[in-house]
Parts: sequence; structure tokens; C-alpha cells
Amino acid sequence: MRNLTMMTDLYQLTMMYGYYKTNTHNRVAVFDLFFRRSREDTAYAIAAGLEQAVDYIENLHFTDEDIQYLRDLALFDEGFLNMLKQIRFTGDIYAVQEGTVVFPNEPILRVKAPLFEAQLIETALLNIINHQTLIATKASKVVHAAQGGKVLEFGLRRAQGPDAAIYGARAAIIGGCSSTSNIIAGQMFDVPISGTHGHSWVMSFADELTAFRAYAEAFPDNCLLLVDTYDTLRSGVPNAIKVFKELKEKGHKPIGIRLDSGDLAYLSKKARKMLDDEGFHDAKIVASNDLDEYLIWDLKAQGAKIDIWGVGTSLITSKDNPALGGVYKMAAEEVKGTLVPKIKISENTDKITLPGYKKVYRIYNTDKKAIADLITLDEETIDTDKPLTIFDPYDTWKRMTLTEYTVRQLLEPVYIEGKLQYKKQKLKDIQEYAKRELDSLWEEYKRISKPHKYKVDLSQKLYDLKEYLIKEHSFKK
Amino acid sequence: MRNLTMMTDLYQLTMMYGYYKTNTHNRVAVFDLFFRRSREDTAYAIAAGLEQAVDYIENLHFTDEDIQYLRDLALFDEGFLNMLKQIRFTGDIYAVQEGTVVFPNEPILRVKAPLFEAQLIETALLNIINHQTLIATKASKVVHAAQGGKVLEFGLRRAQGPDAAIYGARAAIIGGCSSTSNIIAGQMFDVPISGTHGHSWVMSFADELTAFRAYAEAFPDNCLLLVDTYDTLRSGVPNAIKVFKELKEKGHKPIGIRLDSGDLAYLSKKARKMLDDEGFHDAKIVASNDLDEYLIWDLKAQGAKIDIWGVGTSLITSKDNPALGGVYKMAAEEVKGTLVPKIKISENTDKITLPGYKKVYRIYNTDKKAIADLITLDEETIDTDKPLTIFDPYDTWKRMTLTEYTVRQLLEPVYIEGKLQYKKQKLKDIQEYAKRELDSLWEEYKRISKPHKYKVDLSQKLYDLKEYLIKEHSFKK
Repeated sequence: MRNLTMMTDLYQLTMMYGYYKTNTHNRVAVFDLFFRRSREDTAYAIAAGLEQAVDYIENLHFTDEDIQYLRDLALFDEGFLNMLKQIRFTGDIYAVQEGTVVFPNEPILRVKAPLFEAQLIETALLNIINHQTLIATKASKVVHAAQGGKVLEFGLRRAQGPDAAIYGARAAIIGGCSSTSNIIAGQMFDVPISGTHGHSWVMSFADELTAFRAYAEAFPDNCLLLVDTYDTLRSGVPNAIKVFKELKEKGHKPIGIRLDSGDLAYLSKKARKMLDDEGFHDAKIVASNDLDEYLIWDLKAQGAKIDIWGVGTSLITSKDNPALGGVYKMAAEEVKGTLVPKIKISENTDKITLPGYKKVYRIYNTDKKAIADLITLDEETIDTDKPLTIFDPYDTWKRMTLTEYTVRQLLEPVYIEGKLQYKKQKLKDIQEYAKRELDSLWEEYKRISKPHKYKVDLSQKLYDLKEYLIKEHSFKK
Repeated sequence: MRNLTMMTDLYQLTMMYGYYKTNTHNRVAVFDLFFRRSREDTAYAIAAGLEQAVDYIENLHFTDEDIQYLRDLALFDEGFLNMLKQIRFTGDIYAVQEGTVVFPNEPILRVKAPLFEAQLIETALLNIINHQTLIATKASKVVHAAQGGKVLEFGLRRAQGPDAAIYGARAAIIGGCSSTSNIIAGQMFDVPISGTHGHSWVMSFADELTAFRAYAEAFPDNCLLLVDTYDTLRSGVPNAIKVFKELKEKGHKPIGIRLDSGDLAYLSKKARKMLDDEGFHDAKIVASNDLDEYLIWDLKAQGAKIDIWGVGTSLITSKDNPALGGVYKMAAEEVKGTLVPKIKISENTDKITLPGYKKVYRIYNTDKKAIADLITLDEETIDTDKPLTIFDPYDTWKRMTLTEYTVRQLLEPVYIEGKLQYKKQKLKDIQEYAKRELDSLWEEYKRISKPHKYKVDLSQKLYDLKEYLIKEHSFKK
């Protein structure tokens, strides 16, 4: 396992040094990891990356070379370096399971630990969770647009480096992709891989038909042919059909064809007809070429006859929005043995943080559809036998009283007092769970463009605490 | 060193299997790695990633577990798996040095190797070089916009996973950034790291002044204070000045302040005046908050008094354009001992590939400014004692005859017959070289918006070969 302990911002170490110098490094603090908004045109996000975040924490330690490097910076004293040498995570972490649908402003991971530790791990947690959550969310949108069609992830060559490809493929599977082209991701996460041949295969033979025949001979039961190297409808599809007939005579069933250029709506309809006319009703049409959820949605609306969508660059980089702005903000700090809520004020109202040690409930109606999320203080409970009134934390006159409802707490223990509670799950199970999560959302929240905003409300107690701290702050000024 | 041999698309292995089954796997082929266009609003790219590409090839081998995984796919026979087990790179690679300014459509890396090997390495080469070239290019634009101001890379938490952060920081340094916040990148590549404190530091003290004093005590000679936690001009800057005075009395020189929100033009001018009025003329103003090259350019134009720019998300993800469309296309293939040029035809004129075993010359005027690049066949030479006529390969009537000029070949040996020729360079030297490369470009090509297009021309011989192959292809149809 890779040691990413040094993958942190220098300012974490300078702050840790400051806490050490003022002897406050063992003070317990609470940090919330959340994002302020999801991708544009996306109401929700699919949480992902927790497994790698846990791997990182399990492996947290500075090597002798690391300590020497830090010593050479001439910023820190030996007492501090000794403390670093001994660091391990001793706090509590609660987080939503991977694959959980989450919304802006609610904690998806909560750390309660000595400042010294909580600060060190901030950057890597954000890096890992921001990335995988971003890609899982993007993938879920692409899969949604395909309306039951399969989506293959094959962005490896355009991903932002090896990890972006490998963990991006992992996140894409969580978001609903059926397979990846990336062999190492298939190997690491036990998920299906897929791939056939490229244009260079066709070019390296005297002609297309010879190339197709050679491929069919190598893969008689896995024959998917790329038909656009020269001319899709005049050469590619007819040659593929010729080879499919030869395969059929030998008792094999061809998989289908792949289109990688041209107008995919037009070409797929023409190709479908050509295949059907020759009795290859089961042959699949795979399409690729700069696809994203918007184009897939439009192609479907135009009646494109595409069974499987190969999606590369747009998915693996979340091209229209390549970063999730996840943040990690202090919510409370221990003063003389008591957790004192903390708030970060901003001119920008929606950048004011939520104070206190908090948890998140999801509220469902009797059809098991999610109605709203409610953030409460950790000590609060919801009695579902009683009506529950929720309200918009900005437009507080927008209120709603629920009578028949169920609730579920989203944050689950990952570490308690440094002891790992988390159990590794199979990626396929996470994918299944994410699918159920998305099924619990009304379609309005999953619309490809301009989805409806989901309610994330605050309990009265949390709302009052926030208002109190804002006022207290303005008195101070 | 990480083994990324399995980080390839499945279709590379299925094609390799096909070549093996048709006994063509040892046929030598030539592939060019190039990009069709750079980032939008960018005329050039800064090549980067070669060192990691070489690391990858040096470490190329399938482990026993890899072979077992591939066996379990039930796609390949034992003879093929045995060949994989023994694979190592035996061919030639030529590439531009890291830090070289490159342009669309010219080969920046050229592989000549048995099909079996050339195909295997395609995906990882593209992944690594696409990513680092993208980020080095973006960084160079941000640095250009800062017009002499320093740029700090601090996008670690928003990068697309650990590698994107680590190798993105590497590429950012090549592109001209002065330092990174990412400690592990500093350690791995021996480059400066920087960082001070965040808002949580200020929040964890009773008040801002106490927080600033504590920080100054920990870092009396490295004191840079973040002044926007509560109120930049009414609280942050005055408190910072108080602490700076105390430092000065003790014989220390403060570094400066950092602004992270609000209108950076207005706040920096006000803060500059406040610092100057108290005699802190040398105190630097660092600014951050969703910066990119366009905003930096505008802030400079509005007279912002910012010395150092901290750039995160936009740089590390190349947010406005998060993928470089680098491709790897077959240019020639050995038939009976002779390299036969290959072309990939496309309806889209600019997607037609350049055939043959080629090299790239850069042509300079007497002021050492780059005039144009000329792609020629490998066997061609340029006699700089004679006039040279170059022409646009699309609008061939656009011609230009050069009399006083020098030329430089861009592609340098990396591997010859499997033997490594490449010598690892210090990252600082690559950065220096990239700076000289950018200096050789006229400003018109470096404009932040709508830069002028640089000439990439073909030699007459190459042009004729391409035209011949296009005609030959259309006769075939």
C-alpha cells in the first residue's frame, strides 16, 4: 500500500507546529467534510472514495526519510519531528457509506480528533473523496441519460494521470458504469473489463475485410468490430456482416459493431437496419466519440439505435466541471473538556459554516422516496411517532409538517477512538447500493438539465445555535 | 517504483492477441504521439511527462498474478500469456525534451517497435503525457498572466486523485510555478514548497490577534498571515500590522499577508497602502480564491497590488479544458523488411494522419525567435546555407521563403533498440529550459485570449506522400 502521509499541504504542518508550540495540539476538534454545491446541472452527489481514505489513514506514518526531509526545511524543532514520527490516528470518524446519495452542505464525513491529527489528514481526505465523488456523480448522470443502455468507461488515456484513471474507473463503476477498459482497475476492484480493437488493427492489414476476419478468428465468441476506419456504411458494416455470416456458419454468435465517428443517430439507425435485414437482431451497436450525458440524452431522443455507450474523456475528467469543491471546516473545539461549537462567518451567506457536533437524517415518505435531509445536533433524536416540522433554513416561512415518514441516519462509524469500524465492501455491492439510493430519489432531482433542488434543512436547535453564533460574532465586531 | 504494466486498455491486449494469432506481432510499426489541438485559447503546449513515461517503460513487466488474472479472463491462450510474461521494450523511442514548446499535429514522441510492444505501451504513454503536458501548459499561461509575479500551485485537495496532485505539481513547476503546497511533490522532485496557515488556525484561538501572535511566535522569520477570516480591512490587516510591528521590534522581518476572499483588486490596493503607511514596504501580498489566468490578467489590468498568486483548482485540473486530446497513431509499418507509410483517412480533413517515419524541425530567425515548425520525412535534411521555402499544408498558396535562419531538430533519442538513451534531468533545469522555450515565442502566440496560430508546415516530400496516399485510398474505394 502506498504511503501518502506526506501528501499534505505544507500549511497543515506549519499549523500543527503552531499548535505544538502553543501546546494546543492535543485539543480535540471536530471537522466536517462537505461540499457547497455539486456539479452544475446536478442536484445530488454519489459519495465515493471512503475505502481509499481508510487505506490512507491505516497507513499513516512518517518514514525516517520523511522526517529528514522535514528537518532539512529548517522550519521545525526536534520535539515536533519526534511527535510526527509517532503520529497515528486516535480519533473518531463517521462517514456516509460509499454509494450514498448526498447533498450540498451536509457533512458526509465527520472527524473528531486531536487538532494535531485532524489537521494532518485534511488534505488527503479531500483529495481522495473530492475526486471519487466527482466521478461517481458524473457517471451516474451518464448512466441515467443512457436510460437502461449499458455504459462502458474507457477514459484511461485522457485521465489526469494513473490514479485518476484507476480510481476514476472505480468511481465510474460505483456510479453505474457496467465495465471499464482499464485492465488494472478490473484487476484491483474485481469488476468487468471490456475492449475490442482500434483503428490501428484495421490499418495494419491489407484491407478491412482481412482485418475483420483475422479478429473474428482470434475471438470467435467475442467478436465486436469497429466499422468506421474507412467508410462506415459502404465498407465497415457490410464487411462486418460478411464476417458475422462466416462466424454464424461456424456456430459462433457475433457480439456486434462499434461506431466511433460520424452522426451516431443516423449511422446507428442505418446500421441497425442493415444488421436486422441479415438476421443479426441480437448484434449490439456500441457507440463512442466524445459522448457525455447531454449528447446521449439527445441521441436517445432522436431514436438512435445504440445499445452500449462507450464514454471516455467527459466521464473520466468530469469535463464540464472537473472539480468538486469539497471542504473540511472546523465545527467545534474542546475547551476545558467541553465541545464548543465554532462557526466560520463569511460575507457570502451560503459560505457560513454549520456549527456543532452534528448528524444527518434522511426522511422518507411511505413510498420510500426521500423527501428531505435534516441536519441536527448529535444529541438530538427524531421520534417518528410524532409529526415533524421541517423548514427552509434561508426562507424560514417555507415549512412542511410530516406525519407518516421514516428516517435513516446517514453517518456511520468508520473509526472510534482510533479503532477501525469500517468493513471493506465489494465494489459490485457498493454499485448495487448506489443504484438503490438513486431509486429513492424522485426523477425531478435526476433531470439531466436544471434538476429540482433537494431540501437540506436544519433542526430548530441547530438553526438557533447558528443564528446565536452569527449574532455573537457581530456583537464582537 | 510502481508497476503500471496492467494500466492499459483491454483492447491493446486483444489486438496483441490478434497479432500473435496472425503471426504479425513481431512486425515493426511506427506510431506518432501528437495532439490535434492544444487547450482552447492556447496556441502551444509545454511537453511534459517523459520522465514518468520512461519510468513506466523501465518497469514494464507482467507479474505472475497479472498473468493469472489475464488467464482467468478466458480470452487468451497459454502461448500468448508466455509471450506477455517475457515482454520488455526492444524498440526505438524519440521524443521532445520535457519543457519543449510544441504545437498541434507534430509528433512529440515517436515509437518504432514490434507491434506487440508498441501497442501495449500506447495507453500509459498517452495517460502520462496527456496529463502532464496539459497541466504544464495551463501553468505556463497562469504564470504568463502574472507578468513576473510568482505563482504558487496549491490545488492538491481538488486534484483528481493523488497522482493528479503529485505529477500535476511537477508539471506546474515545469510550466513556471515557483512552488507547490504539496509536501510529497516537494520531496519527490526537489522543488520549493510553501504554506502558512488556514482559517481554522484563526478560529481555534479566542481572537484573531491572539492567533496571529501565536503564529508569529512559531514562525518569527516566516510570518505570512491570512487576514480574511473575520474582516480583512477592519480586523485582519490591522491585526497583522500590530504583529508585524512586534516582530520588527524583536529583529524579525515579516513575510506578508494573504487575501483569500472579497474583491482582490480593491482589497490589495487598500492593504498595500495600510502596510506601506506603517513602513512595511517589503511585506508581500499573496492572493488566492478561484484564480485563473483570465482573472489574474484582469486584476493586473485593474492595478491590483498582488505580489504572489496562489492558484488551486483551475490550475491543477486545467479546469476550463481538463483533457488534452493527445493521440497515438500508426504512421508506418514494416512489410518484408521495408517501412511502408500508413495513413488514417477521415471525413474530417484535420483528422487525416501524417504518414511515414518523420521528424520535426523548428526554424528560427536571426533573433532566435521561432518562425515555424517543419515536419519532414526522417531521411530529409535541411541545408541552412540555401533558402528554404515553406508553405501552409492546407492553403498551399501561402508560401514564404527564408534566407537567414537556423534550424533545430526537436525529437531526441530516448530508446535505441531497447537501450535507454534518456538522461534524467533536475526539475529546476527543465523549468529553466521551458522558460527559454517560451522566450523563443513571439508574444502573439502567448496571448491569454485568441492567440495567433503558429505555423506547422510539411516538407514538400511529406506533403506529396500524404496527397499520394489520400488519392490511392480514394481509388481503392
